[in-house]
Amino acid sequence: MTPTISLSRLRANIEALSAFGRQPDRGGISRFCWSPSHEKARAWLIRKMKAAGLATWVDPAGNTFGRLAGAGDASGGRESKGAARRGARGARRARGGHAPTVMTGSHIDTVPNGGPLDGALGVLAGLECLQAVAESGQRPRLPLTLAAWSDEEGRYGGLFGSRCYTGRIDPAQVAGIRAIDGDRLVDAMKRAGFDARKAPSARMRPGEVAAYVELHIEQGPHLEAAGIPIGVVEGIVGIRRFRLAFIGEPDHAGATPMARRKDSFLAAADYALRARDHVVRKGSGRSVTNFGHVEIAPGVSNIVPARTTLLQEMRELDARILGRLERECLALARDVARRRGCRVRVERVSANQGVRCAPRVMRAVAEAAGALGLSHRQMPSAAGHDAQNLAHVTDSGMLFIPSMGGRSHRPDEMSHWKDIERGANVLLLSLLRLAR
Amino acid sequence: MTPTISLSRLRANIEALSAFGRQPDRGGISRFCWSPSHEKARAWLIRKMKAAGLATWVDPAGNTFGRLAGAGDASGGRESKGAARRGARGARRARGGHAPTVMTGSHIDTVPNGGPLDGALGVLAGLECLQAVAESGQRPRLPLTLAAWSDEEGRYGGLFGSRCYTGRIDPAQVAGIRAIDGDRLVDAMKRAGFDARKAPSARMRPGEVAAYVELHIEQGPHLEAAGIPIGVVEGIVGIRRFRLAFIGEPDHAGATPMARRKDSFLAAADYALRARDHVVRKGSGRSVTNFGHVEIAPGVSNIVPARTTLLQEMRELDARILGRLERECLALARDVARRRGCRVRVERVSANQGVRCAPRVMRAVAEAAGALGLSHRQMPSAAGHDAQNLAHVTDSGMLFIPSMGGRSHRPDEMSHWKDIERGANVLLLSLLRLAR
Repeated sequence: MTPTISLSRLRANIEALSAFGRQPDRGGISRFCWSPSHEKARAWLIRKMKAAGLATWVDPAGNTFGRLAGAGDASGGRESKGAARRGARGARRARGGHAPTVMTGSHIDTVPNGGPLDGALGVLAGLECLQAVAESGQRPRLPLTLAAWSDEEGRYGGLFGSRCYTGRIDPAQVAGIRAIDGDRLVDAMKRAGFDARKAPSARMRPGEVAAYVELHIEQGPHLEAAGIPIGVVEGIVGIRRFRLAFIGEPDHAGATPMARRKDSFLAAADYALRARDHVVRKGSGRSVTNFGHVEIAPGVSNIVPARTTLLQEMRELDARILGRLERECLALARDVARRRGCRVRVERVSANQGVRCAPRVMRAVAEAAGALGLSHRQMPSAAGHDAQNLAHVTDSGMLFIPSMGGRSHRPDEMSHWKDIERGANVLLLSLLRLAR
Repeated sequence: MTPTISLSRLRANIEALSAFGRQPDRGGISRFCWSPSHEKARAWLIRKMKAAGLATWVDPAGNTFGRLAGAGDASGGRESKGAARRGARGARRARGGHAPTVMTGSHIDTVPNGGPLDGALGVLAGLECLQAVAESGQRPRLPLTLAAWSDEEGRYGGLFGSRCYTGRIDPAQVAGIRAIDGDRLVDAMKRAGFDARKAPSARMRPGEVAAYVELHIEQGPHLEAAGIPIGVVEGIVGIRRFRLAFIGEPDHAGATPMARRKDSFLAAADYALRARDHVVRKGSGRSVTNFGHVEIAPGVSNIVPARTTLLQEMRELDARILGRLERECLALARDVARRRGCRVRVERVSANQGVRCAPRVMRAVAEAAGALGLSHRQMPSAAGHDAQNLAHVTDSGMLFIPSMGGRSHRPDEMSHWKDIERGANVLLLSLLRLAR
């Protein structure tokens, strides 16, 4: 008999995890990677993994793993208690010498004032799948591994844990990584008991992962609007982030005539409005851009803004279109700055390439949905996910479930429990197909 | 013989004072009221006042005074050493029982990364005038008093010292005053050895001041452009400051389609550009506005800005026009917010009334300039000054000298030394005329 997931247990786990980092007064959840609430959530998760019969370990990048041996595993169908201990020795025993693993996962960190599902759903549905398999007494041929990746939301630079695991990080840059408030990654990791310099050593062995499939909420309105319960992700958008510093003159805000001012804030405001319209008119139709942070210096009422720094983000699946939009926006920034008597300096903060999902994983998800009688549609992911890093080292893919009102990254982010149950069962069948 | 000021001594004092709070790398001067650099500057100023033969005291609002007795003074032409001691007893002895005084002054605090003249010139030229009179051996009938007013630039709310001195502060509000970075006035004053709750007790006795005249740099381009060395100030603009919080929705910045977003930053940007144009087109021609501070919440790259707070300032001499511009801009803000799916909340931060200068003081300045063969023109002050508070309790006025390039509130703020000498000598003659 095919195992199925327990919605009541999954729901209880989602509700329990959402208590870590809960903000007062409907402020949602702020659970930043390496923070005390995140580290408490990690300890909770490890206890849950162990209770589900998984071998657990945490790698030097802070990625938390739980593993269920496959039928073809040398150690047989059940992990030894010894391998379940956290630490390098347990990790080697749990990972070493086994067949390639089929992997699922997501992350347990959140954006500031985020919701209960972004990341948490993929981790806890994955846990539920592995526990359901463990309880069924059956074993697929390949082992199954659950991963909770570090700092997916990128307080200290996006997708950090999966970048380390897939070898997509420059070790020389780790020391310089800072949050937007200046907090250094090395300090944040140290407070949580990690050594950031060792994070790049979390890199996987070649061939360690046979396939990766991640369940996530859509974070957009399309599935709900179409009444379709399962999205088969065809690719993950590329993301560009850059910092634009508009530089004007810090004149007296009373005595300087309006026509003589070189106001960097008005230049930045003018640019943001035009760049937004440009991306809408000249992009793919799905291209998006956002200005999520802005800062004025010196930042006081009676001085004309001398420097205004905008953080701009752009997303698009088609790499050619994304590259063109970036070039056009930066030319527009220079043009707007010049016309307002200012200059602009541009610094590229990050550039993730868009990736296509593996046909084998997309097929496994589509077949799993079909076997459960659920309709599905192919769609791109407009958000970045750890699956895009895994795509560089294995067959990688994702499935989406509908988000209520398309809302995400906010306290009222939610999905219907029925959709959560459907998604978790499709994930379970997909894992079993990929691991047989 | 009429006394004249010593430019070499005044220049040395300006250069010495500018060392307090000097920033590295052409960063100008950051000397915030109550900060260690400001308190060291205050101690330096008191030493200079004493060396010039003035009786000195500091009032509970941190205003620093130096006084030269008049010919009509009971104590005669020279202060006793005892009266020169700082403290309440010395202050009472120095202030009490004397004829009304003619006062000059300005401030020794600066904006962040400000220049060497804004405020400092008025204080040090005033010191130079009183020292020149003291050295001449002659005494005008009335005493002359120099004031360095606290926190003119308003790190903790503008014109604080002169508001306390002229009774224009609500004692119940003092405890709640904070800088934009959250630092409380009570804490800042405590660190400097003051008790903020006692600041309102600095209020002057009725009739204590016979007239007030303040020398300042223009901080604008008009005198330099016209080649005129002396501006006779006819009035000081009113200033409105308000905080506009645009409120949208914190959606995912990748997955939410552009057309569905309620982006509070784009609403604020749109408003700022339109409000600027409105003030230019519909104001008096001299009306100005500035957006000196902005903040996005939650302030991260991958969340659509849920709340964007703009600090807006508006200045205009004509109170009717200023009131109309405020109403029109706030209606515009509501309109722009609504069209972009957002709301706006407005909080008025401060509202200074514009004031007209006293004809008697304007005449004294114009006659002093004429006696020295210097051309002059009447003009409004587009910046706020302590003279506007004094205008509520005495005959108050100001004179301006040209600012190089119209620059002010920035590191390269400067005036020609020849213009500084002319301005200081006009101030000296104005004081003698008002005090005779």
